Amino acid sequence: MGLLSPVRAGSAVEAATGDTAFLRAMLDAEAALARVVAPAGAAEAVAGAARVELYDVRDLALRARAGGNPVIPLVADLTAAVARTDGEAASYVHRGATSQDIVDTAMMLVAARALPLIVADLERTAAELARLAAAHRDTPMPGRTLTQHAVPTTFGLKAAGWRALVLDARDRLAALRPPAQLGGAAGTLAAFDGGVPLLGRFAEETGLAEPDLPWHTLRTPVADLGTALAFAVGALGKAAADVLVLSRTEIGEVAEGAGGGSSAMPHKSNPVRATLMAAAARQAPGHAATLLGSLAAEDERPGGAWHAEWPPLRELLRLAGGAARDAAELASGLRVFPERMAANLGLTEGLIVSERLIAALAPRVGRARAKELLAEAAREGVGLAEALSGVLPPDRLRELTDPTTYVGAAPALTMRALARDA
Amino acid sequence: MGLLSPVRAGSAVEAATGDTAFLRAMLDAEAALARVVAPAGAAEAVAGAARVELYDVRDLALRARAGGNPVIPLVADLTAAVARTDGEAASYVHRGATSQDIVDTAMMLVAARALPLIVADLERTAAELARLAAAHRDTPMPGRTLTQHAVPTTFGLKAAGWRALVLDARDRLAALRPPAQLGGAAGTLAAFDGGVPLLGRFAEETGLAEPDLPWHTLRTPVADLGTALAFAVGALGKAAADVLVLSRTEIGEVAEGAGGGSSAMPHKSNPVRATLMAAAARQAPGHAATLLGSLAAEDERPGGAWHAEWPPLRELLRLAGGAARDAAELASGLRVFPERMAANLGLTEGLIVSERLIAALAPRVGRARAKELLAEAAREGVGLAEALSGVLPPDRLRELTDPTTYVGAAPALTMRALARDA
Amino acid sequence: MGLLSPVRAGSAVEAATGDTAFLRAMLDAEAALARVVAPAGAAEAVAGAARVELYDVRDLALRARAGGNPVIPLVADLTAAVARTDGEAASYVHRGATSQDIVDTAMMLVAARALPLIVADLERTAAELARLAAAHRDTPMPGRTLTQHAVPTTFGLKAAGWRALVLDARDRLAALRPPAQLGGAAGTLAAFDGGVPLLGRFAEETGLAEPDLPWHTLRTPVADLGTALAFAVGALGKAAADVLVLSRTEIGEVAEGAGGGSSAMPHKSNPVRATLMAAAARQAPGHAATLLGSLAAEDERPGGAWHAEWPPLRELLRLAGGAARDAAELASGLRVFPERMAANLGLTEGLIVSERLIAALAPRVGRARAKELLAEAAREGVGLAEALSGVLPPDRLRELTDPTTYVGAAPALTMRALARDA
Amino acid sequence: MGLLSPVRAGSAVEAATGDTAFLRAMLDAEAALARVVAPAGAAEAVAGAARVELYDVRDLALRARAGGNPVIPLVADLTAAVARTDGEAASYVHRGATSQDIVDTAMMLVAARALPLIVADLERTAAELARLAAAHRDTPMPGRTLTQHAVPTTFGLKAAGWRALVLDARDRLAALRPPAQLGGAAGTLAAFDGGVPLLGRFAEETGLAEPDLPWHTLRTPVADLGTALAFAVGALGKAAADVLVLSRTEIGEVAEGAGGGSSAMPHKSNPVRATLMAAAARQAPGHAATLLGSLAAEDERPGGAWHAEWPPLRELLRLAGGAARDAAELASGLRVFPERMAANLGLTEGLIVSERLIAALAPRVGRARAKELLAEAAREGVGLAEALSGVLPPDRLRELTDPTTYVGAAPALTMRALARDA
Repeated sequence: MGLLSPVRAGSAVEAATGDTAFLRAMLDAEAALARVVAPAGAAEAVAGAARVELYDVRDLALRARAGGNPVIPLVADLTAAVARTDGEAASYVHRGATSQDIVDTAMMLVAARALPLIVADLERTAAELARLAAAHRDTPMPGRTLTQHAVPTTFGLKAAGWRALVLDARDRLAALRPPAQLGGAAGTLAAFDGGVPLLGRFAEETGLAEPDLPWHTLRTPVADLGTALAFAVGALGKAAADVLVLSRTEIGEVAEGAGGGSSAMPHKSNPVRATLMAAAARQAPGHAATLLGSLAAEDERPGGAWHAEWPPLRELLRLAGGAARDAAELASGLRVFPERMAANLGLTEGLIVSERLIAALAPRVGRARAKELLAEAAREGVGLAEALSGVLPPDRLRELTDPTTYVGAAPALTMRALARDA
Repeated sequence: MGLLSPVRAGSAVEAATGDTAFLRAMLDAEAALARVVAPAGAAEAVAGAARVELYDVRDLALRARAGGNPVIPLVADLTAAVARTDGEAASYVHRGATSQDIVDTAMMLVAARALPLIVADLERTAAELARLAAAHRDTPMPGRTLTQHAVPTTFGLKAAGWRALVLDARDRLAALRPPAQLGGAAGTLAAFDGGVPLLGRFAEETGLAEPDLPWHTLRTPVADLGTALAFAVGALGKAAADVLVLSRTEIGEVAEGAGGGSSAMPHKSNPVRATLMAAAARQAPGHAATLLGSLAAEDERPGGAWHAEWPPLRELLRLAGGAARDAAELASGLRVFPERMAANLGLTEGLIVSERLIAALAPRVGRARAKELLAEAAREGVGLAEALSGVLPPDRLRELTDPTTYVGAAPALTMRALARDA
Repeated sequence: MGLLSPVRAGSAVEAATGDTAFLRAMLDAEAALARVVAPAGAAEAVAGAARVELYDVRDLALRARAGGNPVIPLVADLTAAVARTDGEAASYVHRGATSQDIVDTAMMLVAARALPLIVADLERTAAELARLAAAHRDTPMPGRTLTQHAVPTTFGLKAAGWRALVLDARDRLAALRPPAQLGGAAGTLAAFDGGVPLLGRFAEETGLAEPDLPWHTLRTPVADLGTALAFAVGALGKAAADVLVLSRTEIGEVAEGAGGGSSAMPHKSNPVRATLMAAAARQAPGHAATLLGSLAAEDERPGGAWHAEWPPLRELLRLAGGAARDAAELASGLRVFPERMAANLGLTEGLIVSERLIAALAPRVGRARAKELLAEAAREGVGLAEALSGVLPPDRLRELTDPTTYVGAAPALTMRALARDA
Repeated sequence: MGLLSPVRAGSAVEAATGDTAFLRAMLDAEAALARVVAPAGAAEAVAGAARVELYDVRDLALRARAGGNPVIPLVADLTAAVARTDGEAASYVHRGATSQDIVDTAMMLVAARALPLIVADLERTAAELARLAAAHRDTPMPGRTLTQHAVPTTFGLKAAGWRALVLDARDRLAALRPPAQLGGAAGTLAAFDGGVPLLGRFAEETGLAEPDLPWHTLRTPVADLGTALAFAVGALGKAAADVLVLSRTEIGEVAEGAGGGSSAMPHKSNPVRATLMAAAARQAPGHAATLLGSLAAEDERPGGAWHAEWPPLRELLRLAGGAARDAAELASGLRVFPERMAANLGLTEGLIVSERLIAALAPRVGRARAKELLAEAAREGVGLAEALSGVLPPDRLRELTDPTTYVGAAPALTMRALARDA
């Protein structure tokens, strides 16, 4: 019920990937198969019985233990349901197929139905980030490396970078074409009459892509899904990592629109969306690793590698869907505080532009001496004014140490990034 | 509902780790807290309201999104429930605690309740394996390395080895002492009156171990659980891997008592228990990796590392519980076919004891020549009789090439292993 | 020196990814930078000093500890080396850049140089597998699912499937376009004169792709490399898994051309190439997971996520390169034994085509009764002849139970698969 | 040479785990074996030839490819070396053993030699942290949860927490007893004369623990090492994560003794030790996952699972050793800035103790109203003085909002933690 998974609780993807959705997809696969192998009337009878509300998910789950997958009891129940109205049609149920044809097709149907939901939230996120990036194209803030102020950047460039990752994720997910699965007992289509053309016909009935070959143990579709989804979750994890940093009490440069509360500490406004996204980004790689490991699947159907794919693939869909929903909410509500950015830029009293100072000093005193002077200035209680008093006139120093004029190509890079997918 | 997780569907551990069980554990934690911080009457009122059937799990899951964890809405509901009978008592609900105190304590309660179930199935498994090992102490079978026949071993030694791993897993799980969690907002117990002794009092009320310190970001208990559970699943994966090999149609040395059927291929009897155990062993390492990664948790409560622990820890309990149940079933029903082992021992026509032949030949012809002769014998269409015709008398060759007399210390090792935990 | 990594010892990719190769790539990056920011003469001086033999890799490695990356000491040494011949030119060394610009560019150069080596071995593998698939298009063998004989397939289809995965891997690796990295201290190009166009100019000088943005913390290129390489290793792991099964003493349907020997057991011929490929497939997912986890990188340069990428990215290149070399050797030398396949097809005495028998029996006795009859036949000591004596004439039974005539569309699927990339 | 691995470059553990160290350990294993199976003179001859300088590591690595492990060529070279001085003794080299006996024993020897180095650095770290914790037992600082100020804590408690994790790691590593490996071709000791007692005799000669059984495919020792080492790296990752946060320019509560420099930005002082520790913590879980996955090893020696253990086990030793060295350096040099902690405590102008304020207000105005008042105070531009003006007298408010008097049991918890292992 999602008690331990707030990232996806109540999301559209959660519903689209639940046990009921999966059962529906298995029934859809059986109905599509009937349309391919049975006369029209029989196919209709099968389709008529392939309604999810007629079956007991929990009971199927328990009976799945005997054979190791839920298709075996489902076929029994579906056959019985069809037989109640059309005995002849019942003989066409699951004809020629193997359990894996149905489970794999269902898994791809579930993925194909969940992916547009994730992509939509990624696009919503990207649009919000484009708005933020454009609005803050010139808003200076400290650039930070290894946790320390480096040189200034702009919030626009940061938001544009988040968006670039979101679009990378969108592109990878949108490019996926989950294929139908049909092969029969050992992937040779031996129990079917139709031969190779069946792959296309079945795919068409399911609405999925046509595979080149039955892929019972050629798991490219699963690995591709797994890595693209884990990429998406990780890409959102970057924005989350930044929001967590920038929201810190001491930094305060951004805040979530509606931060999470605390019963005991009413002053707190936690970056909850970012927290849940960060938590998702920590979980996704392990699932992707399991799926990549399942590529090494022996025989025509393996004893374990296939079964090991189901939970991590579903969980990756849910993590991606949940994190994308959170990202869209986060981006649409994010509050940005340019004045805090400006204040933070001043914290090092000009040292944040030491890179520019060296460039300015080098022609006068040499690069090595310039570095010495700045290292001296960085010493506690000294400061630039004192250290450089004999080297640079105060006006020039003031000019050079204005961090807001040292953002380099950040605005231009922002615009370049925003031109993508315009 | 477990449709994609046959390994745990319907198991005792599944029920002990479900959302309802977790809600019950959170309520138990709140009730224990009340017994520590409130007057007896108020504590009783809290305990009276801390009954799982009074709360709506799904509703809590949805409301958990706002603050990122389920305790915030639960405390609101629990407070309201207490207030309905005892307004004064309501003010003691969750007093001094932080959400993480409750979630962590609940997670440890869930673990502490699930672990004995897993341990019991591991001990059941070990007992069945002891029976098999003793019965087949002297049953010779081919030892196999890098998939090839090496030298003979015994099935008793193999079963004793599986048991050794099962006992290693049992020992690691049985040694765990999940601690209670209590620290308050930042782990200083500041909002409590009782100070350090509270740790012991709260632990006692929960039945969990007393921690040395609040461990909000000192995650040894979670990492220990994660690695011990993943070890257990992996240890069972060894037996599964062997059963999958030995069950192969061509090998046929063992079979599951009740193999899984196939609707299309009635002759098949699949090693389903081993398959599900193998699938579990493929999934566990990714979850353990996520938990080990969460050790690096910043601050007094991290933004993500903590939230990332919940699903993998629960899933590891379920995989271990499910795999242990399957292992017990597998071990109790396993059919062993000594005659197939004997037949397989003969497949290489004596070459499986080439190690002994070299030892016997070396004094006569030198070690190098002995190896040449055996390499010659291994060539297609030659055979030992021909290759060694001039070197060893036929009787002696027959004696030396009897694989059943070259099992070395396998029976003695079996007995040594069975002496453990006798 | 590769003592624990036989999969890559001595391979071309090993050399292309060693510390020396990486140092060379860093120097190439510095030389390219000089060509972009310095006058021609100075750039020439830098390029002249950017020769790997002038530097001490181990000394750089030790000095890298102080700042956490090897560029800081390298820039010092390179500057000194340039200064020895051209003091003015020395001032252009590393100008405007940050350490990460050089490390990232070097990492991409190393990848860009290693990828064609891997792709070439994958294509060599695919060509050999095409040869095998074509030669054995019609060679029947047992199809196996959950370790049990299912229905027949052909070795051609199996080899074609391996090839399909190899080509999937090839396609994913060949599509990668590792980009150059240039951003300066915080990715704003502030210390450069040239602004945004510098990205293109620097990329051109390095021979790498032009990035849209500096990607110091937008790690799509690293994640893409990581997942594509892990996919490739996993894809090869499928063929390895099958070869390990089919090489088993009891199965014997294939053997490696030159199996690994054993000092003690001269009869053994181990599937060593498959073993090393399988070992690589077990290691790759963990590395990919680390890289996917590093997507969540805070700030303009993170404290740890970046540094954590170096070893796993290199190791993935080496695992992929080593496994691809092994795959090419395995495929070119693989020995296939159709007679053993035929013998194994007979092991179940016709039951391997029970699927066809049911289809044949169903019209006569009904599907349910047909299954009962076959289940009866599968019982020990019964057999098809006895079980079906009253139902099918012996001639017809003989015809139906010939497994070689029940390979379905396997040959057609093989040809379809071979048409890819023809 | 460590160019991409600054965390371990030049460390004692790096040297103890290199290819040369591993070769030495393999030779030690062979010498120990000779002492068990050969007459004293022959054993001496073998030991005399088992000197690492007589062998070419790279050549062995290349020849290891043929059989998949380095023992096969090593035994050939060692035998030849012995034969040069004592032909009879040469026949005892490797007698009765299998490659895995030597590789596993060598791996455990390498681990057994590296572990005390790691433990020593952990203890050095713990001692430094104890000093810091004692010195700052009462130093107040902001407690932070989900990145936001929560309530005060003390730096002493934080350092004591780091130390608790370090001691947990120390305990887990110090408890390991890596066992020797001896089993012969299939783990039955068949080619030895001595039977079961050989396990103890060989173990004694190696200095390793005696195993209960040959553990060729009972990989508890490897999994235990892997999880304990990954735990240690993760435990150090916690301190690293905190140092990275507390070192931030805006926070500035701690600084590494000798921070890393930047060529372009002389003002920077990067937390380099923490960065390398954090990077290690990101890599360790993937390696542990690979080792846990290798528990599922089929047969008497598996085709891949065993070979997959070597690189991750070595890498974990190196990451743990490197991170422990960095931790010791970090802890011994860490600069702590109580004045910055005090300043940061004031940032929320008293709201950091809102928990205490609610407790104080609740009896006056009720808990709900108290929360409202504080939420009001937290609104921008309001503040506690204004919001509580009519409710609490200014003096009392001043007293209550002094964060330094709201550290709860932090000092007592610190002392309790320091009592461990006193």
